[in-house]
Amino acid sequence: MVVLEKARCNMKESEKIRRKIRDGEFVGQTSGVAPGYAQANLVVLPKKYAFDFLLFIQRNPKPCPLLEVTDVGSPYTKQVADNADLRTDIPKYRVYEKGKLVDEPIDITSYWNDDLVAFLLGCSFSFEWALLEAGIPVRHIEANRNVPMYITNIQTNPAGVFHGPLVVSMRSIPYDLVVKATNITARFPSVHGAPVHIGYPELIGIYNLNKPDYGDPPIIKENDIPVFWACGVTPQAVAVNSKIDFMITHSPGHMFVTDLKNQDFALF
Amino acid sequence: MVVLEKARCNMKESEKIRRKIRDGEFVGQTSGVAPGYAQANLVVLPKKYAFDFLLFIQRNPKPCPLLEVTDVGSPYTKQVADNADLRTDIPKYRVYEKGKLVDEPIDITSYWNDDLVAFLLGCSFSFEWALLEAGIPVRHIEANRNVPMYITNIQTNPAGVFHGPLVVSMRSIPYDLVVKATNITARFPSVHGAPVHIGYPELIGIYNLNKPDYGDPPIIKENDIPVFWACGVTPQAVAVNSKIDFMITHSPGHMFVTDLKNQDFALF
Repeated sequence: MVVLEKARCNMKESEKIRRKIRDGEFVGQTSGVAPGYAQANLVVLPKKYAFDFLLFIQRNPKPCPLLEVTDVGSPYTKQVADNADLRTDIPKYRVYEKGKLVDEPIDITSYWNDDLVAFLLGCSFSFEWALLEAGIPVRHIEANRNVPMYITNIQTNPAGVFHGPLVVSMRSIPYDLVVKATNITARFPSVHGAPVHIGYPELIGIYNLNKPDYGDPPIIKENDIPVFWACGVTPQAVAVNSKIDFMITHSPGHMFVTDLKNQDFALF
Repeated sequence: MVVLEKARCNMKESEKIRRKIRDGEFVGQTSGVAPGYAQANLVVLPKKYAFDFLLFIQRNPKPCPLLEVTDVGSPYTKQVADNADLRTDIPKYRVYEKGKLVDEPIDITSYWNDDLVAFLLGCSFSFEWALLEAGIPVRHIEANRNVPMYITNIQTNPAGVFHGPLVVSMRSIPYDLVVKATNITARFPSVHGAPVHIGYPELIGIYNLNKPDYGDPPIIKENDIPVFWACGVTPQAVAVNSKIDFMITHSPGHMFVTDLKNQDFALF
C-alpha cells in the first residue's frame, strides 16, 4: 500500500482520481475533483449508430463539443487521457435499452463488447471555471445545486436516426456582468462556447424558468438576467428520444476526468 | 485641374475625401464616404483642460477610445492620417463657450491658436461596419437615420473638472443574433468594444426607448432585443456639462476620416 501511495505521488491529479474510481475508492459526483482538469460527457453506442451520431455531432457543434472518439471496440482513450479505461474510470454509468434506463452500474465491463464506440464530449464545468476565474458568480455552484436545463423550441440539425430539440443550461448572471460572461465563454468554443440566448426565455420556447426539464430549479437574484448555453445533455436526450437499441452514458454529475486542463480549451 | 485630378488618383480614398473637404468641395455628413476607412470624433480643448481630459479618457476607455492626441498648438495629425489639418479637414465643426454652442463653422482656422490640443476618438461607424460584414442588420442604417443615444444612470469615472453620466447608443438586434453582435464588437475594443448592456433598458436608467436624448427614435422590429454600447458622445456631453471656457468638436455626423482601416481595429 505504501508502494502504491508513492506511485500515485507522481501521477497527475486527474490520473489519481481515475485510479481511485477504478479501484472503487471514489464513487461520488465529480464536481470539484481534480481542480483545473476538464471533465467530459460519455456516450457509448453500437457501431451501427456511430456514423450517424458522429455526423449529428459534426452538424451540432455547440451542444456536442467532441473531444475524442475511441476506436471501434476499444474502451481506451488516446487523446484526452493516458491509461484511461472507459469501462471502469467513471464513478457511475447509465445503461439504456430502446430508450429506457435499465441499469445504473459503477462499472460497465460486463456490458462492453467489440462492437461499441465511445464518444467523449466537452462539459460546461470547463467554462464555469472560466466564469468563476473572471469573478462572475455561478448561482447553482454557490447553492451547491445542479444547473437547470431546459428543452427549447430550437431544433438540432438531424443526422440519420438522431433528431430532436436543443437542450440548454441556464445561468442567471448579474445584469452588469452578462456581456463579460458572453465574451469569456466565447473563448471556449470546444466546451459549448458563447451563449445561444440572452434575456428572453419565451423567445426560445421556455415558459417557466422555475420548472427545468433537467437539473434543479434556478436561483435568480434581483437584477440577474437569464443566460442560456447549449447543453451537453442534448446528444444524450436526442439518443434517448431516438429509441436506439442500446446506449451507455455516464450518470449525470459523474463525469470522466480528463488529463486536459480547462485553460487548454481557451481559443485565445 | 487635370494635374490635380491625376495627383488625386494616387491618394487613398480617405485622403481624397479630406482634400475635397479642405477645398470646400464636400460639406455633408461623412457616413458611408471612403468605405472601409475608420472615422473619428474630434474634441479640441485649451491646454489647461488637456491633462484632466486625457485622464478622463484613460479612466473611461469604453466611451472614449483614444486614437490620437496632437502636440500642443499643432492642428496636424501624425498617427491616424498623413497630411491632415484638423482645422480644415472636417466638413463641419461646433464651437462651445462656457457650455453653450456659439458657432457651427466649416473651418476653424480663425479659432485655432497655439494653446489648443486636439483629441481624436474612435467612432462606432467602425464596429457597425463589422456588424454589417457579419450579416447583422443595423436598423438605423437600414432606415437612413441617426443612431438613438441615451443618458444612463451609469456614472463615468470623474477626472478633474470632467464628470457626468455615461451616454450609450442603442441598436436593436434580432434575438438570435445578439450573442454574435456581442462577440463581434468585443473584437473592436478601440472603437467602444462589446456592449455595456443587453436587454433591460430600465436597469441602466432608460425608461422610454422612443425618446432618445440624442439622435433619432429607434426602429425596433418584432423579436429584436435592445443592445447598448458606450457612445463617443459621452466625452463631448461631459465637456459641455462641465461648462468649460472653450471647446471645439466636430458637428454630429460630420466626422474626421482617418487613413486607418476599420479592420485594423480588430483585436483578433
